Amino acid sequence: MPDRPRIAHVGIAVADLEVALAFYRDVLGIVPHPPEIVDGTTILALPFGEAEVELMAPHDEDSPVGKFLAKRGPGIHHICYRVPDLDAAIQACREAGYRLVDEIPRAGAAGRRIAFIHPKSTAGILLELTD
Amino acid sequence: MPDRPRIAHVGIAVADLEVALAFYRDVLGIVPHPPEIVDGTTILALPFGEAEVELMAPHDEDSPVGKFLAKRGPGIHHICYRVPDLDAAIQACREAGYRLVDEIPRAGAAGRRIAFIHPKSTAGILLELTD
Repeated sequence: MPDRPRIAHVGIAVADLEVALAFYRDVLGIVPHPPEIVDGTTILALPFGEAEVELMAPHDEDSPVGKFLAKRGPGIHHICYRVPDLDAAIQACREAGYRLVDEIPRAGAAGRRIAFIHPKSTAGILLELTD
Repeated sequence: MPDRPRIAHVGIAVADLEVALAFYRDVLGIVPHPPEIVDGTTILALPFGEAEVELMAPHDEDSPVGKFLAKRGPGIHHICYRVPDLDAAIQACREAGYRLVDEIPRAGAAGRRIAFIHPKSTAGILLELTD
């Protein structure tokens, strides 16, 4: 656990996983982790040192990523920050008036706890916190 | 220089720097680097370990970031990857058919060379490479 915040991952909404993966595989030489399916979306995590890029391809227009893709087209969907103390960061969010999607952290991938902050309170930018 | 690609920075287009900075300062305790003005846009770089988040506030609707903001609203604008060999990565882009905005790398911040890849060739995602 770092003592300062880090970028945990950046999530990119894509229409076609294979097309998106080609750049990372052919230009950067990245080998993806095995795909996971979460919330109607296939997620392909690509390792970048301690951080990851997540290519997210929705199967369903009504899934959260499906709605983003339908409305905005392919693009960078969210940033997840790893913090030294998730409970303290969530409390700081509340005190500073940020609206949490997850008032209580929920289980994310790899046994980590995650909490999303509502983009309406961060000027349209979807941010996620994890520990 | 890492021997594998890393996330160098993530650029976020914002309408109001102070509003965007508040989250990073008050929740994450991040101290920004001094602001820089590039291409009609004030850039505030926030340190996250070896990576940075760049908050980008355009002064001019006709600047590249101004156009993004006018068209899509605030959001994550691009990802910059640091690669071990920029010239080899650019050559790999050409061979794989990716269209480069910068055919020859140009000078970016801190004396580093940068090259953008045209988002039309990466399914709408703006990517930057640096060394």
